[in-house]
Amino acid sequence: MNVQADDFFFSGLNIMGNTSNPVGSKVTPVTVAQLPGLNTLGISMVRIDYAPWGLNPPHTHPRATEILTVLEGSLQVGFVTSNPENRLISKVLQKGDVFVFPVGLVHFQRNVGYGNAVAIAALSSQNPGVITIANAVFGSNPPIAADLLAKAFQVKTSVVDQLQSKF
Amino acid sequence: MNVQADDFFFSGLNIMGNTSNPVGSKVTPVTVAQLPGLNTLGISMVRIDYAPWGLNPPHTHPRATEILTVLEGSLQVGFVTSNPENRLISKVLQKGDVFVFPVGLVHFQRNVGYGNAVAIAALSSQNPGVITIANAVFGSNPPIAADLLAKAFQVKTSVVDQLQSKF
Amino acid sequence: MNVQADDFFFSGLNIMGNTSNPVGSKVTPVTVAQLPGLNTLGISMVRIDYAPWGLNPPHTHPRATEILTVLEGSLQVGFVTSNPENRLISKVLQKGDVFVFPVGLVHFQRNVGYGNAVAIAALSSQNPGVITIANAVFGSNPPIAADLLAKAFQVKTSVVDQLQSKF
Amino acid sequence: MNVQADDFFFSGLNIMGNTSNPVGSKVTPVTVAQLPGLNTLGISMVRIDYAPWGLNPPHTHPRATEILTVLEGSLQVGFVTSNPENRLISKVLQKGDVFVFPVGLVHFQRNVGYGNAVAIAALSSQNPGVITIANAVFGSNPPIAADLLAKAFQVKTSVVDQLQSKF
Amino acid sequence: MNVQADDFFFSGLNIMGNTSNPVGSKVTPVTVAQLPGLNTLGISMVRIDYAPWGLNPPHTHPRATEILTVLEGSLQVGFVTSNPENRLISKVLQKGDVFVFPVGLVHFQRNVGYGNAVAIAALSSQNPGVITIANAVFGSNPPIAADLLAKAFQVKTSVVDQLQSKF
Amino acid sequence: MNVQADDFFFSGLNIMGNTSNPVGSKVTPVTVAQLPGLNTLGISMVRIDYAPWGLNPPHTHPRATEILTVLEGSLQVGFVTSNPENRLISKVLQKGDVFVFPVGLVHFQRNVGYGNAVAIAALSSQNPGVITIANAVFGSNPPIAADLLAKAFQVKTSVVDQLQSKF
Repeated sequence: MNVQADDFFFSGLNIMGNTSNPVGSKVTPVTVAQLPGLNTLGISMVRIDYAPWGLNPPHTHPRATEILTVLEGSLQVGFVTSNPENRLISKVLQKGDVFVFPVGLVHFQRNVGYGNAVAIAALSSQNPGVITIANAVFGSNPPIAADLLAKAFQVKTSVVDQLQSKF
Repeated sequence: MNVQADDFFFSGLNIMGNTSNPVGSKVTPVTVAQLPGLNTLGISMVRIDYAPWGLNPPHTHPRATEILTVLEGSLQVGFVTSNPENRLISKVLQKGDVFVFPVGLVHFQRNVGYGNAVAIAALSSQNPGVITIANAVFGSNPPIAADLLAKAFQVKTSVVDQLQSKF
Repeated sequence: MNVQADDFFFSGLNIMGNTSNPVGSKVTPVTVAQLPGLNTLGISMVRIDYAPWGLNPPHTHPRATEILTVLEGSLQVGFVTSNPENRLISKVLQKGDVFVFPVGLVHFQRNVGYGNAVAIAALSSQNPGVITIANAVFGSNPPIAADLLAKAFQVKTSVVDQLQSKF
Repeated sequence: MNVQADDFFFSGLNIMGNTSNPVGSKVTPVTVAQLPGLNTLGISMVRIDYAPWGLNPPHTHPRATEILTVLEGSLQVGFVTSNPENRLISKVLQKGDVFVFPVGLVHFQRNVGYGNAVAIAALSSQNPGVITIANAVFGSNPPIAADLLAKAFQVKTSVVDQLQSKF
Repeated sequence: MNVQADDFFFSGLNIMGNTSNPVGSKVTPVTVAQLPGLNTLGISMVRIDYAPWGLNPPHTHPRATEILTVLEGSLQVGFVTSNPENRLISKVLQKGDVFVFPVGLVHFQRNVGYGNAVAIAALSSQNPGVITIANAVFGSNPPIAADLLAKAFQVKTSVVDQLQSKF
Repeated sequence: MNVQADDFFFSGLNIMGNTSNPVGSKVTPVTVAQLPGLNTLGISMVRIDYAPWGLNPPHTHPRATEILTVLEGSLQVGFVTSNPENRLISKVLQKGDVFVFPVGLVHFQRNVGYGNAVAIAALSSQNPGVITIANAVFGSNPPIAADLLAKAFQVKTSVVDQLQSKF
């Protein structure tokens, strides 16, 4: 009844995200947390900036499929199918190309050029969630036991210690 | 099992649509019809080009909410709430602004500048459908009876005849 | 726990609606607003009365399919398919006939007889919403700009002014 | 593409059903089996005729809520809530009254008058299913073992034999 | 944000239920009522204990499909398909066997051995609901009229009185 | 119409899985692939065996929540919440304990005893999917580029080479 235009409005997706971080990428989200009018409407949008060779590292969205288009630059993108195939479905995208990452699958994008890259993506939920694999597995709080991860990844505990020390 | 990267790929959203038509706008869709990998995944994307003062005329998507961001230019956007309020919720958007059009509501965008405008939008269905109000009401095939429309719009039949003759 | 029979009960669908209005029809709704027990249950019902030649004007339900049966009189009914076909699917119904209006499509009913007509319809949502096209497009509050509508309907602004003056 | 008006049309809901049967009621269904255009649309409709004191016996719809209105006569209607309350929610309906039977609950209607009664009901599925309790429990093919039912209903096997002999 | 492990935890499914009751079975539920973390997650679990020849009597779940596996003993299980077939689909299960009861259908399990039997089952809702047919039909509060049930089950009222006296 | 009891039946969940593999655990699934009658019914079941100190390594189900109960032994279980918290929610379970893993989140179970452990779990989809993180990230076919993973996990490429060599 009392909805206003501003309930359906968000400003700033033209602003480049700060990619000065270890992976060289930045996601600017427009989900229900930023835009309350999205509540119950089943969609959201993000801008992704990539420094040269910057990476949006392997992650999943537990509640959404993603569709992405490249505004600037060249991106290598990929997702991995579920067990038992674990096939990598991968492609290098140029400006204007569109790619789909099906719900729940591990996926990534990497800038494969010497300039900045920018993408706009949309997700099929107002609250898609993001699970960055490295952070969830090696950077949780508290940490998952190192010997458990050593068995999962079939490496020595010292390798896991090294991985956990980064997060 | 035999999915390929190209099943999830579409090319060409960087290409300006041809806006040489009566309304001065052009939608380039990436739905399941153009990108088969979207099947069952509940999302799609479009590019919309607007000539100066071009209009994406009042329409609805029977099966999707839309989220739109402006890449270039300035757009006046709006949607109308359902009966009995019929409130127009409207806003002028600049580059980087985002706006939401809830599922099934009548909405439009108009370029309010002297240059071209471009938007990217996403929809919460792989097959959202589009109903352009003018075409559905005054341009259907066969036409809706003119006297019926005259009563609906409370005008003389000659006004309806005029409206129907355009489509 | 404390539900009562009256939470699931509504009275008065036998009462003829007042059709003394410009379109000559009246909808009596039984949705979650009138019958709270419908909450979350995904269905609602309406009675529609039609004066002789009365019209339930072109409208959409953003969240529901409708199924209608004629109790008295003869109704011409129709809906228009989405772009690009915009086909009018139409039929004259007699007493006992049933017709379906798929979710989100523009549809109407008109009494094509000299007596009153009555229909009972059900909708696949407890809160289906109604968008009367004429009211949403030419009667919103505030109004959609006349020159915008003139471009959408490809008529002079004076024709739009005339249409807007009726609502 | 090739849909026709007849795909969305059914004729005959004005015709009284034959209630010459042990329970004195008859349901005339308009589901996807009778009206193919209902496919995926999530709704269906039925007419129910009741001889004087006729009964639509206790049953459930495994996939639908039902909303019913009385066209003629007086109906006692009721449904029973789930375990552990098993509360009977009941009401006598007159012409024009509306009642809701929530999805999956056991419910019934009985004509409590000396004339015929008629109701129109709608269901929130194109394929709601019907499970008449008496038929499912005592009339299945092959029968459920009599000693099993005797324990369930806490009566002698001879009582179950009597019940099973009716179906 | 403040979720704790205990919000996702329930203890005691190893404990044998007390089967000293007329039907000789006991269901120990783990639904959202016992385990709040299940809220919105669409699943629940139960343990079912059966005394020798104990019966989990004919019942339905209005909002869930059930999948069951036998941990100990032998169970005769069955469900009845909807009208008009009312086919009994039945099987004797041994330890390690799995059986499915589709949403909304009447089903039962009976221990067909001289020792105790135990099953674990899961349901496709955090709040599946249970309607025990005997209790809903013959044991509701207030009772369904005896003459109504006599007509439904096609027996004398005295038989219904006998059935109702047990609940 | 022609369904048989065997369409709803699966045998063998009492049989211990072969845990002679690097992680020391084995999942025996009963999904729609093994039990066709589960089609459209929204649920499935698995047995999980764990050798002493065996691990069901970190994984996600893209389309299902999981509920698990311990039949034998002691299991440490955990899941990690999404960004930005990445909280580990963890618990040691004993026989009869139940735990929930919400849809799409990374989770694991580890036998923390010197004997075998066994669990039964159910999932809220007939086709839940499984993504074992180690296999998807370090064992895909073809592999994800080592330098990309090195950046994602912030380690030297040689560490990634070591991880990839195991799968």
